[in-house]
Amino acid sequence: MEKRISDSVINRLPRYYRHLTDLLESGTERISSRELSEKMNITASQIRQDLNCFGGFGQQGYGYNVELLRNEIAKILGLTQGYTAILIGAGHMGRTFATNTKFESRGFRLIGIFDTDSKKIGQEVARHTIRDYREVGSFIEEHQPQMAILAVPKDAMHNVAEEMIAYGIRAFLNFSYTELSREDEDIVVENVHLSDSLMRLSYKLLENNKKNTVTSQK
Amino acid sequence: MEKRISDSVINRLPRYYRHLTDLLESGTERISSRELSEKMNITASQIRQDLNCFGGFGQQGYGYNVELLRNEIAKILGLTQGYTAILIGAGHMGRTFATNTKFESRGFRLIGIFDTDSKKIGQEVARHTIRDYREVGSFIEEHQPQMAILAVPKDAMHNVAEEMIAYGIRAFLNFSYTELSREDEDIVVENVHLSDSLMRLSYKLLENNKKNTVTSQK
Repeated sequence: MEKRISDSVINRLPRYYRHLTDLLESGTERISSRELSEKMNITASQIRQDLNCFGGFGQQGYGYNVELLRNEIAKILGLTQGYTAILIGAGHMGRTFATNTKFESRGFRLIGIFDTDSKKIGQEVARHTIRDYREVGSFIEEHQPQMAILAVPKDAMHNVAEEMIAYGIRAFLNFSYTELSREDEDIVVENVHLSDSLMRLSYKLLENNKKNTVTSQK
Repeated sequence: MEKRISDSVINRLPRYYRHLTDLLESGTERISSRELSEKMNITASQIRQDLNCFGGFGQQGYGYNVELLRNEIAKILGLTQGYTAILIGAGHMGRTFATNTKFESRGFRLIGIFDTDSKKIGQEVARHTIRDYREVGSFIEEHQPQMAILAVPKDAMHNVAEEMIAYGIRAFLNFSYTELSREDEDIVVENVHLSDSLMRLSYKLLENNKKNTVTSQK
Protein backbone atom coordinates (compact mmCIF):
# COMPACT_ATOMS: atom_id res chain seq x y z
CA MET A 1 0.00 0.00 0.00
CA GLU A 2 2.82 2.44 -0.80
CA LYS A 3 1.20 5.10 -2.92
CA ARG A 4 2.05 8.73 -3.31
CA ILE A 5 -0.45 10.84 -1.36
CA SER A 6 -0.86 14.45 -2.52
CA ASP A 7 0.30 17.35 -0.34
CA SER A 8 -3.19 18.74 0.03
CA VAL A 9 -4.46 15.42 1.39
CA ILE A 10 -1.48 15.28 3.77
CA ASN A 11 -2.31 18.80 4.93
CA ARG A 12 -5.83 17.68 5.79
CA LEU A 13 -4.83 14.47 7.58
CA PRO A 14 -4.06 16.04 10.98
CA ARG A 15 -7.57 17.47 11.00
CA TYR A 16 -9.12 14.10 10.20
CA TYR A 17 -6.97 12.60 12.92
CA ARG A 18 -8.21 15.11 15.51
CA HIS A 19 -11.86 14.63 14.59
CA LEU A 20 -11.57 10.84 14.58
CA THR A 21 -9.84 10.98 17.99
CA ASP A 22 -12.72 13.06 19.36
CA LEU A 23 -15.22 10.57 17.91
CA LEU A 24 -13.36 7.61 19.38
CA GLU A 25 -13.17 9.27 22.79
CA SER A 26 -16.92 9.89 22.68
CA GLY A 27 -17.47 6.17 21.93
CA THR A 28 -18.44 6.40 18.24
CA GLU A 29 -17.54 3.20 16.37
CA ARG A 30 -18.73 4.00 12.85
CA ILE A 31 -19.40 7.19 10.96
CA SER A 32 -20.72 7.86 7.48
CA SER A 33 -18.99 10.29 5.17
CA ARG A 34 -22.12 12.46 5.39
CA GLU A 35 -21.94 12.68 9.20
CA LEU A 36 -18.19 13.30 9.16
CA SER A 37 -18.78 15.91 6.47
CA GLU A 38 -21.26 17.81 8.67
CA LYS A 39 -18.94 17.61 11.67
CA MET A 40 -15.91 18.82 9.71
CA ASN A 41 -17.70 21.23 7.42
CA ILE A 42 -16.25 19.82 4.19
CA THR A 43 -18.16 18.02 1.44
CA ALA A 44 -18.83 14.29 1.75
CA SER A 45 -17.36 13.73 -1.69
CA GLN A 46 -14.11 15.42 -0.65
CA ILE A 47 -13.96 13.13 2.38
CA ARG A 48 -14.57 10.01 0.29
CA GLN A 49 -11.93 11.13 -2.19
CA ASP A 50 -9.36 11.88 0.54
CA LEU A 51 -9.93 8.68 2.47
CA ASN A 52 -9.97 6.49 -0.61
CA CYS A 53 -6.20 6.99 -0.70
CA PHE A 54 -5.94 4.59 2.23
CA GLY A 55 -8.52 2.12 0.92
CA GLY A 56 -10.75 -0.37 2.66
CA PHE A 57 -12.04 1.66 5.59
CA GLY A 58 -15.29 2.86 4.14
CA GLN A 59 -18.03 0.45 3.18
CA GLN A 60 -21.00 1.55 1.11
CA GLY A 61 -23.90 1.99 3.51
CA TYR A 62 -21.84 1.21 6.60
CA GLY A 63 -19.55 4.21 6.81
CA TYR A 64 -16.06 4.24 8.26
CA ASN A 65 -14.74 2.23 11.15
CA VAL A 66 -13.52 5.13 13.31
CA GLU A 67 -10.76 3.27 15.13
CA LEU A 68 -9.28 1.54 12.08
CA LEU A 69 -9.31 4.73 10.05
CA ARG A 70 -7.75 6.74 12.87
CA ASN A 71 -5.01 4.14 13.34
CA GLU A 72 -4.25 4.10 9.63
CA ILE A 73 -3.95 7.90 9.55
CA ALA A 74 -1.75 7.78 12.67
CA LYS A 75 0.58 5.35 10.90
CA ILE A 76 0.78 7.51 7.77
CA LEU A 77 1.53 10.62 9.85
CA GLY A 78 4.25 8.81 11.80
CA LEU A 79 2.33 9.18 15.08
CA THR A 80 3.04 5.53 15.96
CA GLN A 81 6.82 6.05 15.79
CA GLY A 82 7.08 7.34 19.36
CA TYR A 83 8.92 10.50 18.32
CA THR A 84 10.22 12.68 21.15
CA ALA A 85 10.65 16.45 21.08
CA ILE A 86 12.34 19.22 22.99
CA LEU A 87 11.07 22.79 23.14
CA ILE A 88 13.51 25.67 22.91
CA GLY A 89 12.09 28.91 24.29
CA ALA A 90 9.65 29.29 27.16
CA GLY A 91 8.21 32.66 26.24
CA HIS A 92 4.52 33.19 25.42
CA MET A 93 4.68 31.10 22.24
CA GLY A 94 6.54 28.19 23.84
CA ARG A 95 4.27 28.17 26.87
CA THR A 96 1.01 28.21 24.97
CA PHE A 97 2.22 25.39 22.73
CA ALA A 98 3.55 23.24 25.59
CA THR A 99 0.44 23.79 27.69
CA ASN A 100 -2.22 23.27 25.05
CA THR A 101 -0.83 20.57 22.80
CA LYS A 102 -2.05 17.09 23.65
CA PHE A 103 1.35 15.54 22.90
CA GLU A 104 0.52 12.06 24.18
CA SER A 105 -2.80 11.67 22.39
CA ARG A 106 -1.00 12.81 19.19
CA GLY A 107 1.67 10.14 19.68
CA PHE A 108 4.52 12.41 20.81
CA ARG A 109 6.47 12.93 23.99
CA LEU A 110 7.75 16.35 25.00
CA ILE A 111 10.85 15.49 27.04
CA GLY A 112 12.41 18.85 27.84
CA ILE A 113 11.91 22.64 27.78
CA PHE A 114 14.93 24.96 27.59
CA ASP A 115 15.49 28.70 27.88
CA THR A 116 18.44 31.04 28.31
CA ASP A 117 16.64 33.42 30.69
CA SER A 118 17.75 32.79 34.29
CA LYS A 119 14.40 34.10 35.56
CA LYS A 120 12.58 31.36 33.61
CA ILE A 121 14.97 28.48 34.32
CA GLY A 122 13.54 26.35 37.14
CA GLN A 123 9.92 27.46 36.56
CA GLU A 124 7.27 24.84 35.86
CA VAL A 125 5.47 24.74 32.48
CA ALA A 126 3.17 21.91 31.44
CA ARG A 127 4.64 19.67 34.18
CA HIS A 128 8.20 20.32 33.00
CA THR A 129 10.86 22.27 34.85
CA ILE A 130 12.43 24.73 32.44
CA ARG A 131 16.10 23.79 31.96
CA ASP A 132 19.14 25.91 31.25
CA TYR A 133 19.77 26.10 27.50
CA ARG A 134 23.49 25.59 28.20
CA GLU A 135 22.70 21.98 29.11
CA VAL A 136 20.85 21.24 25.88
CA GLY A 137 23.83 19.54 24.18
CA SER A 138 24.37 16.93 26.86
CA PHE A 139 20.59 16.45 27.18
CA ILE A 140 20.28 15.70 23.47
CA GLU A 141 23.23 13.33 23.62
CA GLU A 142 21.63 11.43 26.48
CA HIS A 143 17.99 11.39 25.34
CA GLN A 144 18.28 11.56 21.53
CA PRO A 145 15.06 13.50 20.76
CA GLN A 146 14.07 13.47 17.08
CA MET A 147 12.44 16.90 16.98
CA ALA A 148 13.12 20.42 18.20
CA ILE A 149 10.32 22.96 18.53
CA LEU A 150 11.76 26.46 18.12
CA ALA A 151 9.89 29.22 19.92
CA VAL A 152 12.79 31.63 20.26
CA PRO A 153 13.09 35.29 19.23
CA LYS A 154 13.47 35.88 15.51
CA ASP A 155 17.08 37.06 15.81
CA ALA A 156 18.15 33.99 17.77
CA MET A 157 16.48 31.39 15.56
CA HIS A 158 19.22 30.69 13.03
CA ASN A 159 21.93 30.27 15.67
CA VAL A 160 19.77 27.97 17.76
CA ALA A 161 18.88 25.89 14.70
CA GLU A 162 22.56 25.54 13.72
CA GLU A 163 23.42 24.38 17.23
CA MET A 164 20.58 21.84 17.23
CA ILE A 165 21.76 20.53 13.86
CA ALA A 166 25.30 20.20 15.21
CA TYR A 167 23.86 18.17 18.10
CA GLY A 168 22.15 15.86 15.63
CA ILE A 169 18.54 17.07 15.46
CA ARG A 170 17.01 16.60 12.01
CA ALA A 171 13.41 17.85 12.38
CA PHE A 172 12.27 21.35 13.31
CA LEU A 173 8.93 22.90 14.08
CA ASN A 174 9.62 26.60 13.81
CA PHE A 175 7.37 29.20 15.48
CA SER A 176 9.98 31.95 15.46
CA TYR A 177 8.29 34.42 13.08
CA THR A 178 11.03 33.97 10.51
CA GLU A 179 11.54 31.08 8.14
CA LEU A 180 14.07 28.34 8.61
CA SER A 181 15.09 27.01 5.23
CA ARG A 182 17.72 24.32 4.81
CA GLU A 183 19.01 22.89 1.59
CA ASP A 184 20.20 19.71 3.33
CA GLU A 185 18.26 16.73 2.14
CA ASP A 186 18.19 15.08 5.55
CA ILE A 187 16.68 17.97 7.50
CA VAL A 188 12.94 18.56 7.63
CA VAL A 189 11.29 21.79 8.70
CA GLU A 190 7.73 22.91 9.31
CA ASN A 191 7.56 26.71 9.51
CA VAL A 192 4.46 28.11 11.18
CA HIS A 193 3.65 31.70 10.41
CA LEU A 194 0.69 32.78 12.50
CA SER A 195 0.08 35.94 10.49
CA ASP A 196 -0.52 33.86 7.36
CA SER A 197 -3.77 32.72 8.94
CA LEU A 198 -4.88 36.34 9.32
CA MET A 199 -4.24 36.89 5.60
CA ARG A 200 -6.21 33.75 4.74
CA LEU A 201 -9.10 34.99 6.86
CA SER A 202 -8.90 38.32 5.06
CA TYR A 203 -9.21 36.53 1.72
CA LYS A 204 -12.25 34.59 2.92
CA LEU A 205 -13.91 37.74 4.24
CA LEU A 206 -13.32 39.61 0.99
CA GLU A 207 -14.67 36.71 -1.10
CA ASN A 208 -17.69 36.46 1.16
CA ASN A 209 -18.38 40.18 0.91
CA LYS A 210 -18.14 40.00 -2.90
CA LYS A 211 -20.59 37.09 -2.95
CA ASN A 212 -23.03 38.89 -0.69
CA THR A 213 -22.83 42.02 -2.80
CA VAL A 214 -23.61 40.00 -5.91
CA THR A 215 -26.51 38.29 -4.14
CA SER A 216 -28.03 41.53 -2.93
CA GLN A 217 -27.76 43.06 -6.39
CA LYS A 218 -29.91 40.29 -7.84
CA MET B 1 -9.60 39.29 -14.29
CA GLU B 2 -12.10 37.40 -12.17
CA LYS B 3 -10.95 33.81 -12.28
CA ARG B 4 -11.33 31.08 -9.75
CA ILE B 5 -7.99 30.55 -7.93
CA SER B 6 -7.49 27.12 -6.37
CA ASP B 7 -7.38 26.70 -2.59
CA SER B 8 -3.80 25.47 -2.63
CA VAL B 9 -2.65 28.58 -4.47
CA ILE B 10 -4.58 30.73 -1.99
CA ASN B 11 -2.89 28.90 0.86
CA ARG B 12 0.53 29.77 -0.58
CA LEU B 13 -0.28 33.43 -1.28
CA PRO B 14 0.47 34.74 2.24
CA ARG B 15 3.93 33.22 1.99
CA TYR B 16 4.56 34.88 -1.38
CA TYR B 17 3.33 38.11 0.11
CA ARG B 18 5.75 37.88 3.04
CA HIS B 19 8.72 37.09 0.84
CA LEU B 20 7.89 39.83 -1.65
CA THR B 21 7.51 42.31 1.22
CA ASP B 22 10.98 41.35 2.51
CA LEU B 23 12.41 41.79 -0.99
CA LEU B 24 10.76 45.17 -1.41
CA GLU B 25 12.03 46.32 1.98
CA SER B 26 15.55 45.27 0.99
CA GLY B 27 15.24 47.33 -2.21
CA THR B 28 14.88 44.52 -4.76
CA GLU B 29 12.91 45.65 -7.82
CA ARG B 30 12.88 42.51 -9.96
CA ILE B 31 13.31 38.84 -9.22
CA SER B 32 13.42 35.80 -11.48
CA SER B 33 11.35 32.73 -10.68
CA ARG B 34 14.65 30.87 -10.16
CA GLU B 35 15.85 33.34 -7.50
CA LEU B 36 12.45 33.42 -5.81
CA SER B 37 12.45 29.64 -5.96
CA GLU B 38 15.78 29.40 -4.12
CA LYS B 39 14.65 31.90 -1.52
CA MET B 40 11.34 30.16 -0.90
CA ASN B 41 12.56 26.62 -1.33
CA ILE B 42 9.87 25.64 -3.85
CA THR B 43 10.39 24.79 -7.51
CA ALA B 44 10.59 27.57 -10.09
CA SER B 45 7.93 25.84 -12.17
CA GLN B 46 5.55 25.79 -9.18
CA ILE B 47 6.13 29.52 -8.75
CA ARG B 48 5.49 30.23 -12.43
CA GLN B 49 2.35 28.13 -12.32
CA ASP B 50 1.06 29.84 -9.14
CA LEU B 51 1.79 33.36 -10.30
CA ASN B 52 0.42 32.82 -13.78
CA CYS B 53 -3.01 32.94 -12.19
CA PHE B 54 -2.60 36.70 -11.83
CA GLY B 55 -1.08 37.22 -15.27
CA GLY B 56 1.26 39.84 -16.63
CA PHE B 57 3.80 40.20 -13.83
CA GLY B 58 6.47 37.87 -15.10
CA GLN B 59 8.32 38.56 -18.33
CA GLN B 60 10.50 35.92 -19.94
CA GLY B 61 14.10 36.82 -19.11
CA TYR B 62 13.16 39.82 -16.96
CA GLY B 63 11.58 38.14 -13.96
CA TYR B 64 8.85 39.61 -11.80
CA ASN B 65 8.35 43.21 -10.84
CA VAL B 66 8.41 42.78 -7.05
CA GLU B 67 6.22 45.75 -6.18
CA LEU B 68 3.53 45.12 -8.80
CA LEU B 69 3.31 41.44 -7.93
CA ARG B 70 3.16 42.16 -4.20
CA ASN B 71 0.41 44.75 -4.72
CA GLU B 72 -1.61 42.35 -6.84
CA ILE B 73 -1.35 39.62 -4.19
CA ALA B 74 -2.30 42.15 -1.51
CA LYS B 75 -5.44 43.03 -3.46
CA ILE B 76 -6.41 39.38 -3.91
CA LEU B 77 -5.91 38.67 -0.21
CA GLY B 78 -7.99 41.69 0.79
CA LEU B 79 -5.02 43.40 2.43
CA THR B 80 -5.90 46.69 0.76
CA GLN B 81 -9.36 46.75 2.35
CA GLY B 82 -8.15 48.29 5.62
CA TYR B 83 -9.76 45.61 7.75
CA THR B 84 -9.63 46.17 11.49
CA ALA B 85 -9.50 43.49 14.17
CA ILE B 86 -9.98 43.05 17.88
CA LEU B 87 -8.22 40.42 19.97
CA ILE B 88 -10.14 38.56 22.64
CA GLY B 89 -7.86 36.96 25.24
CA ALA B 90 -4.53 38.31 26.47
CA GLY B 91 -3.03 35.04 27.69
CA HIS B 92 0.15 33.55 26.20
CA MET B 93 -1.42 32.91 22.81
CA GLY B 94 -3.00 36.36 22.49
CA ARG B 95 0.15 38.11 23.63
CA THR B 96 2.50 36.30 21.28
CA PHE B 97 0.19 36.97 18.35
CA ALA B 98 -0.34 40.66 19.20
CA THR B 99 3.36 41.24 19.81
CA ASN B 100 4.82 39.42 16.82
CA THR B 101 2.33 40.03 14.04
CA LYS B 102 3.24 42.92 11.77
CA PHE B 103 -0.37 44.03 11.43
CA GLU B 104 0.32 47.26 9.58
CA SER B 105 2.69 45.81 7.00
CA ARG B 106 0.07 43.11 6.37
CA GLY B 107 -2.61 45.72 5.82
CA PHE B 108 -4.52 45.31 9.08
CA ARG B 109 -5.13 47.39 12.16
CA LEU B 110 -5.46 45.81 15.59
CA ILE B 111 -7.72 48.26 17.39
CA GLY B 112 -8.38 46.64 20.78
CA ILE B 113 -7.39 43.81 23.13
CA PHE B 114 -9.90 42.45 25.64
CA ASP B 115 -9.77 40.07 28.59
CA THR B 116 -12.00 39.11 31.52
CA ASP B 117 -9.15 38.79 34.01
CA SER B 118 -8.99 41.85 36.27
CA LYS B 119 -5.25 41.28 36.79
CA LYS B 120 -4.66 41.65 33.05
CA ILE B 121 -7.04 44.55 32.38
CA GLY B 122 -5.03 47.78 32.24
CA GLN B 123 -1.73 46.08 31.34
CA GLU B 124 0.08 47.08 28.14
CA VAL B 125 0.51 44.57 25.31
CA ALA B 126 1.88 45.56 21.91
CA ARG B 127 1.17 49.24 22.64
CA HIS B 128 -2.45 48.50 23.58
CA THR B 129 -3.98 48.75 27.02
CA ILE B 130 -5.91 45.57 27.73
CA ARG B 131 -9.59 46.44 28.05
CA ASP B 132 -12.35 44.90 30.12
CA TYR B 133 -14.24 42.30 28.09
CA ARG B 134 -17.49 43.68 29.50
CA GLU B 135 -16.97 46.77 27.34
CA VAL B 136 -16.53 44.84 24.11
CA GLY B 137 -20.12 45.32 22.91
CA SER B 138 -20.04 49.11 23.06
CA PHE B 139 -16.52 49.11 21.59
CA ILE B 140 -17.66 47.07 18.58
CA GLU B 141 -20.68 49.30 18.11
CA GLU B 142 -18.47 52.38 18.07
CA HIS B 143 -15.50 51.09 16.02
CA GLN B 144 -17.09 48.42 13.81
CA PRO B 145 -14.11 46.03 13.51
CA GLN B 146 -14.50 43.39 10.80
CA MET B 147 -12.55 40.62 12.51
CA ALA B 148 -12.22 39.04 15.92
CA ILE B 149 -9.14 37.04 16.88
CA LEU B 150 -10.11 34.47 19.50
CA ALA B 151 -7.35 33.43 21.86
CA VAL B 152 -9.54 32.37 24.76
CA PRO B 153 -9.65 29.09 26.70
CA LYS B 154 -11.22 26.17 24.87
CA ASP B 155 -14.29 26.08 27.13
CA ALA B 156 -15.03 29.77 26.66
CA MET B 157 -14.63 29.88 22.89
CA HIS B 158 -18.16 29.06 21.77
CA ASN B 159 -19.80 31.55 24.14
CA VAL B 160 -17.41 34.31 23.13
CA ALA B 161 -17.97 33.58 19.45
CA GLU B 162 -21.76 33.71 19.88
CA GLU B 163 -21.48 37.06 21.64
CA MET B 164 -19.23 38.45 18.90
CA ILE B 165 -21.72 37.27 16.26
CA ALA B 166 -24.55 38.95 18.14
CA TYR B 167 -22.50 42.17 18.12
CA GLY B 168 -22.13 41.89 14.35
CA ILE B 169 -18.66 40.36 13.81
CA ARG B 170 -18.56 38.11 10.73
CA ALA B 171 -14.92 36.96 10.54
CA PHE B 172 -13.03 34.92 13.12
CA LEU B 173 -9.44 33.85 13.48
CA ASN B 174 -9.63 31.12 16.08
CA PHE B 175 -6.58 30.05 18.13
CA SER B 176 -8.60 28.45 20.92
CA TYR B 177 -7.51 24.80 20.48
CA THR B 178 -11.01 23.80 19.51
CA GLU B 179 -12.74 24.33 16.20
CA LEU B 180 -15.33 26.97 15.51
CA SER B 181 -17.66 25.76 12.81
CA ARG B 182 -20.63 27.79 11.62
CA GLU B 183 -23.16 26.82 9.03
CA ASP B 184 -24.09 30.46 8.42
CA GLU B 185 -23.17 31.50 4.94
CA ASP B 186 -22.17 34.98 5.97
CA ILE B 187 -19.65 34.02 8.66
CA VAL B 188 -16.05 33.12 7.81
CA VAL B 189 -13.68 31.30 10.12
CA GLU B 190 -10.01 30.40 10.02
CA ASN B 191 -9.23 27.80 12.67
CA VAL B 192 -5.57 27.48 13.60
CA HIS B 193 -4.56 24.25 15.29
CA LEU B 194 -0.93 24.49 16.29
CA SER B 195 -0.63 20.76 16.96
CA ASP B 196 -1.48 20.01 13.32
CA SER B 197 1.91 21.44 12.40
CA LEU B 198 3.60 18.94 14.72
CA MET B 199 1.77 16.11 12.94
CA ARG B 200 2.83 17.47 9.55
CA LEU B 201 6.43 17.61 10.73
CA SER B 202 6.12 14.02 11.93
CA TYR B 203 4.94 12.97 8.46
CA LYS B 204 7.91 14.73 6.82
CA LEU B 205 10.36 13.13 9.23
CA LEU B 206 8.93 9.66 8.63
CA GLU B 207 9.02 10.11 4.84
CA ASN B 208 12.58 11.39 5.06
CA ASN B 209 13.68 8.45 7.19
CA LYS B 210 12.08 6.03 4.72
CA LYS B 211 13.91 7.71 1.84
CA ASN B 212 17.24 7.60 3.65
CA THR B 213 16.74 3.93 4.51
CA VAL B 214 16.07 3.15 0.87
CA THR B 215 19.14 5.16 -0.20
CA SER B 216 21.45 3.44 2.27
CA GLN B 217 20.21 0.00 1.21
CA LYS B 218 21.28 0.68 -2.36
